[in-house]
Amino acid sequence: MREVAVLGIGQTPVSEHWEKSLRELAGDAALAALEDAGQERADALYVGNMMSGSANHQQHLGSYIADWIGLRGIEALRLESACSSGAAAFRAGYIAVASGEVEIALVVGVEKMSDSPGSEITSALATAADADWEVDQGVSFVALNAMLMRRYMYEYGWKREDFMPFSLNAHANAVHNPNARLGKAISEKAYLQAPMVAEPVSIMDASPMGDGAAAIVLGSRRCLAANRKAVIVAGSAAATDSLAVHDRRDGTWLQAAELSAQRAYELAAVGPQDVDLFELHDAFTIMAALSLEAAGFAERGQGPRLALEGEITLKGRIPVATRGGLKARGHPVGATGMYQLVEVVEQLRGEAGATQVDGARVGMAQNIGGSGSNIVTHILQVG
Amino acid sequence: MREVAVLGIGQTPVSEHWEKSLRELAGDAALAALEDAGQERADALYVGNMMSGSANHQQHLGSYIADWIGLRGIEALRLESACSSGAAAFRAGYIAVASGEVEIALVVGVEKMSDSPGSEITSALATAADADWEVDQGVSFVALNAMLMRRYMYEYGWKREDFMPFSLNAHANAVHNPNARLGKAISEKAYLQAPMVAEPVSIMDASPMGDGAAAIVLGSRRCLAANRKAVIVAGSAAATDSLAVHDRRDGTWLQAAELSAQRAYELAAVGPQDVDLFELHDAFTIMAALSLEAAGFAERGQGPRLALEGEITLKGRIPVATRGGLKARGHPVGATGMYQLVEVVEQLRGEAGATQVDGARVGMAQNIGGSGSNIVTHILQVG
Repeated sequence: MREVAVLGIGQTPVSEHWEKSLRELAGDAALAALEDAGQERADALYVGNMMSGSANHQQHLGSYIADWIGLRGIEALRLESACSSGAAAFRAGYIAVASGEVEIALVVGVEKMSDSPGSEITSALATAADADWEVDQGVSFVALNAMLMRRYMYEYGWKREDFMPFSLNAHANAVHNPNARLGKAISEKAYLQAPMVAEPVSIMDASPMGDGAAAIVLGSRRCLAANRKAVIVAGSAAATDSLAVHDRRDGTWLQAAELSAQRAYELAAVGPQDVDLFELHDAFTIMAALSLEAAGFAERGQGPRLALEGEITLKGRIPVATRGGLKARGHPVGATGMYQLVEVVEQLRGEAGATQVDGARVGMAQNIGGSGSNIVTHILQVG
Repeated sequence: MREVAVLGIGQTPVSEHWEKSLRELAGDAALAALEDAGQERADALYVGNMMSGSANHQQHLGSYIADWIGLRGIEALRLESACSSGAAAFRAGYIAVASGEVEIALVVGVEKMSDSPGSEITSALATAADADWEVDQGVSFVALNAMLMRRYMYEYGWKREDFMPFSLNAHANAVHNPNARLGKAISEKAYLQAPMVAEPVSIMDASPMGDGAAAIVLGSRRCLAANRKAVIVAGSAAATDSLAVHDRRDGTWLQAAELSAQRAYELAAVGPQDVDLFELHDAFTIMAALSLEAAGFAERGQGPRLALEGEITLKGRIPVATRGGLKARGHPVGATGMYQLVEVVEQLRGEAGATQVDGARVGMAQNIGGSGSNIVTHILQVG
């Protein structure tokens, strides 16, 4: 396995892109990443996408996007693990380059959710959960997270408002990210009075869907463009848990997050204390808390404490959602993992503007599929 | 890249499996492959599937299947490139093992199509074509193949009946395959009088859908069970073409088949003359002809001649569809590529019974996604 570097990044704003098709969105991010990398082409394309089959009546996105961006002929395919499809695609691209099978890999995460009615999107999101044992019982994806949050509050004595800092922090950071879906700060009052989606999950605990694409070009360090800071993939790992939440020993512990984070730490030869920022998967505030715990930044049951003590802000011990997170940058599901990685690269290159984490050298991204059933963790380092 | 061996194979019959869920089907094939390999577990799971999101309201098959077969925790994900999803998953597993990232990989192709109404399956199959430029114009997947076949007949002067040997050969071989969907021989009369699906494609030119799963365990040669014949992955390659057929310079030439076959030959250091059998993608008889040409077994426009001269039968120059092919073994779309590979392994191990190709040492499988837009070629060898 040879060293793999990030050669280029690209992204579109997360928004309602009525003016662009799925291929245009993906193409915009992909071509921006190639340009950023100073590369004219890639040898293989890995697409992370969850729901284009139902939301856009289009699967087969490998060939679809490769041709659109002028790379007809190259190897291309789609990778899917629900909401962690983006990071799964990145990991496939990483392995292909690290193995020597591919010289230059282009990874694109894309999702276009606005074109479909809300009921169809709800059904499509539910395909991430267990159709027989969860969805057929009438449980939606938000309801699953609401049950997890309620159990967690019961187990560890937290109140709903204790999750507020996750939401406020994400929105505060998104103000400075031109690609964010909700680039505005929110007040404590807005959080506390937010309407419920599925109690105790309010709209301020849940991330907004959206259309968007983010892309990264991977290759060996010698392919880096002149004057482009080297960002290296230091750790890459994925792990699973049961698909149905009720089938876990402890629903309030993200076993797959722990497994993949531990493996990524081991590969990168770092620990939580070495990580300068953490793009975690705050699809719901409860998931932010659980990620912090499973990845070793907080004791079990104490994720909200870290947030309440201000340690997740840009000046805190472990800044999270530095570009807005899923909560405020937005959550175009199959693209999200790629947005997280692009944002880590922005930080490690020192290109994060007003939300730059000073002297960031080690960044981590963790992408969660389903209610914690498929989790992919990456550690990037200034190399 | 280190050498990768096939440690074990497993498959379910292709049929209408009303009695089994998607996870049970996948599990049956996966556990059979692990048992055949003498392995208790795998380190990662790669799932090839095209349409479970719409046909079974279930995506996220990595976690879904890993947990079901008792491997909760391992890395697991789904790969999709329409009807070539099976071979795409195999290739991902191959790269992971060859790179050293994974020790033992389990690859499963699975599709369960019977549970959905035919109209939904037709829509789901159409997601393999271009939604904007083909499907929205009213073109179904069969219609695309019918237009290709008609053009080909016009260009090269063939008649519909010249494609008959592909169908007869596939059915003749399927008689001896207990896993075949249509395990019965057909007569010339049955072919000639077959009702049209989309002229000139009759039901005897088109492959039947079905439910099924096929699985392979990959690892290094030293993991081979005692007395298990070594079958090595000698060549693996994938290539793309435009998604929309009308956008190709020549619709009657499978550019992606040529590209991926040439690369696979190069890697395996063999040529068409060295290949003892070819499991090609006869979703339609026209595709069988085009595959033979693009892979170098026939001159351009002369695929049917090879068939008419008897060279595709078990005793011919290049036996195809030796276990029934898509036409008669059946075409559970996302699983098909894995069935092809399992069947090549059966041949190379000498386990193909009445359809054994004498002394087979080099076998090739080619899996086609869309109307030729994503093609994956593998060459396996007795090692």
